[in-house]
Parts: sequence; structure tokens; C-alpha cells
Amino acid sequence: MRFTSEQHLDDGVLEREFTLGEIPGTLWTPASAAPAPLVLMAHNNGLPKADPRLVARARYTTARGYAVATIDAAGCGDRPRSAADEQVRDDLRRAMRAGEPVDEIFESFIGPLVENAVPEWRTTLDALLDLPGIRGPVGYSGGWTALGIRLAVTEPRVAAAGFFAGGYVPRAQREEARQVTVPLLFLLQWDDEGNPRQRALDLFDAFGSEEKTLHANVGGHTGTPRFELEDGCRFLDRHLK
Amino acid sequence: MRFTSEQHLDDGVLEREFTLGEIPGTLWTPASAAPAPLVLMAHNNGLPKADPRLVARARYTTARGYAVATIDAAGCGDRPRSAADEQVRDDLRRAMRAGEPVDEIFESFIGPLVENAVPEWRTTLDALLDLPGIRGPVGYSGGWTALGIRLAVTEPRVAAAGFFAGGYVPRAQREEARQVTVPLLFLLQWDDEGNPRQRALDLFDAFGSEEKTLHANVGGHTGTPRFELEDGCRFLDRHLK
Repeated sequence: MRFTSEQHLDDGVLEREFTLGEIPGTLWTPASAAPAPLVLMAHNNGLPKADPRLVARARYTTARGYAVATIDAAGCGDRPRSAADEQVRDDLRRAMRAGEPVDEIFESFIGPLVENAVPEWRTTLDALLDLPGIRGPVGYSGGWTALGIRLAVTEPRVAAAGFFAGGYVPRAQREEARQVTVPLLFLLQWDDEGNPRQRALDLFDAFGSEEKTLHANVGGHTGTPRFELEDGCRFLDRHLK
Repeated sequence: MRFTSEQHLDDGVLEREFTLGEIPGTLWTPASAAPAPLVLMAHNNGLPKADPRLVARARYTTARGYAVATIDAAGCGDRPRSAADEQVRDDLRRAMRAGEPVDEIFESFIGPLVENAVPEWRTTLDALLDLPGIRGPVGYSGGWTALGIRLAVTEPRVAAAGFFAGGYVPRAQREEARQVTVPLLFLLQWDDEGNPRQRALDLFDAFGSEEKTLHANVGGHTGTPRFELEDGCRFLDRHLK
């Protein structure tokens, strides 16, 4: 793991860019002396790690006493992309906007992306937990629900997970949801134009966790109220601190 | 309003029984010097105001800086009851346990109860706001969702409402839900044996409020996790303090 830049923010948060082999990432750490529990924060597939909403969420969570990390998925953000992938992403976005069925694109394109992303997140997790000042148990928090499901099922160091939306999740992860047993906070925008509500409710229903909580708010995909940031941290506090 | 008994609790909370005409009630007030916003806390129809879960919720909320009040509905708790009413309540409970349709009992029995309860709560509200140390705006928090809907629609002093469950609500209040515009926290037990989930979700969908949040947790009717107490107070804090 090689740090390539660092920035000290107002609230004592240190924001560092890093690379780990081909993987570009960002790590936020709090000012506190005691080791901070790690939160893996993933953005919805396709969005760069520099997405302002992700960065705001990461900084807020770090100021609450967590080490937060994110990486760019293959073909996203700072990583090389292929014209073919871009075409599929364009098709996907267009189909979703038009309300057309997208299940097939999901299965053939997003499915393998999830499979490929998991080892990268695990490699990153190994490297981060070797750093001083960062400890487990680890939380997952993010908009890429399929990745979160796969990580929660396959990575025993993940002890709590916060998912956002999740109407569209490949079949493999919808089926895997029953195997998720960690405490769960599932965030849903009630009028999310890009995530069918009933599918999200069915997914919530499927999770095997003994503690699972759904928070649903009115409004579209980007309309999550600010108080959910605080709620998300309080959920992590209960399980990681 | 006549106080008939008082008890000082450990956390500085003062718990007083009162009567207001025929209405028996309980008022909890915090130790703070500044006037406390009032929260009307109703129990599900049929339960007495001395129900331990209601009392625990009222004491917790009061310790967080609120004046909390509840009253017994006609035919409940400390109030005279008729054999005929008791029979209907027994029928209702038996039908619900057996999973039989209860809509007709609801319409003919619970409907008028809601209508009759509202003026009593308003009379109580008037009397409470005349007391020193208690102020508006007023919150509603409780398991009697139909009463809460009616109060939120007809009583402009109610500025925020927390509802619990609410799968069974008379038709009149299901229709009135669209007229509710105050900020709302809607609490649902995902596996509530006595409240059909889809009806509760439909009711949440129907509310007209610009800010409405659904919190759903796994488990049966009485399994609400303790952290929802804290969440409920934080919701009230945002709107009443």
C-alpha cells in the first residue's frame, strides 16, 4: 500500500489517497489516538470514489471515530475503462431511465463485476488492518448492496452492514441474502426512481440476520435526509465500538 | 384537573395520576426548570394506561426532557366497562389470534371509539398546556395509530407524530391518512402477528407528510428493539425542541 497524497481537514480528519497494486483508494482516519474500527464504504457500481456524496458520508463517519476506506472498482473512477464497458453502462442507464427491464444486463455485466470486486476489497481490508491505528471488527456501509452481501457472507471480519436502496441486485446475491447473519441497517428511498420498492422490501425480508432494521424515507434516490447519516453512525456504534 | 397521587422517580421524573372529569390520566414531568414540550402518548386501544411498556416508554421520554401524558380510553384501564364491550373485545382478540377477518368488528366497534376518544384527548391537551412548565408544540407518540391520525388531522397543536405498527386502522382513518402533513415516524414490527405487514406499508405510503420515515425491525408485536426508544426521542427532538 502506497500513499500518494494527503490532506488534513478541518475536523482533524486525515484524508489520504493510496494505491494497492492496480487498485486506487482513499483512506480517511480520525484524529483520535485509540485505534479506530474500520468501515468499508462502497459507492454504487459505476460511481467514482471521489463522488461528492460518498466523500461527505466518509468524512462525517470518520469525524465520528471511524477509519473509513473506499476503492475504485475496475473500470470506474481513476481506473482504465474499456469502450465496451462504457457502452454497457450507457445502455444500463438508458434502460433504467426509460423504465425498461434491466435484469439481463444486470446478470451479464454487474454479476461478474461483483465477483471480481470482492477479492480486491479483501486485499484492501488485509492491508488496512496492518496499518497502525486501524482495527476490526469491520463495518460495511454503502450503496453497492450486492458487493456488501457478498462481503458479509464471505468475509468473517465484517461484523455489521449498512446497505442503501438495493432494488436491483443480481440474482446470485438475492439468493445469498439469506446467508447474511450480521446486524443490518437497510436504507430505502420510498420513491427511488431507479430501485423498485417491492424488490427492495423483498430483499430486506430475505436477509437472515437476527437484527435487521429498515429505514425508509420519502423522496427519490438522492433525497436521503441528513439525519440518516447520524442514524448510520449510531448503528455502527452499537456493533463496532 | 385534579392530581390524586404523585411519585418521585430516581431520574428526577415526577409521575402524577390525575382525573379530568371522568377521564383518568397520568402525567410525567422532567426535573428541568425550562418548560418542557408535551408528548401525548397513547397505548393501543384496550390496554390500560398502566401498561408496563407504555410506562417504560413514558419515563424514558420524560427523562429526555419532555412532559408526557396519557389517559385511559372509555371502557379501558381505570374506567367503568360494560359486559357488551368486553364481549366485543374478546371476540376481536380471538378473531385476530385465529387469523380471521376483523374488519367488520373494527369498523363497528373501534371506529366510534376513535371518534369518542379525540374530544377527550383535546380536553386533556387544553388542561395540560395550562399547567406551568409544559409547552407546545405537541408531539403524539403511540400505538393507537387511528387516534394519532385523527388528532394529527384535527388538532393544529400536534406538530409531529410517532406511530407504532398500524396494520389495523378503521377505514375512516386510512382515508384520512392523506391529510396528515406533520413529520412522521412510523414504527413497524416486520413479523407482527397482529398487524398485516402490507396494510401497514400501504398506510405509510398513504400519509401526506413531506417528512415521513419508516423504521421496521424483525420480530413480533412486542419485540421492538430498545434502540427505537432513543430513535423516537431523536425524532421528537428534531421537531419539538
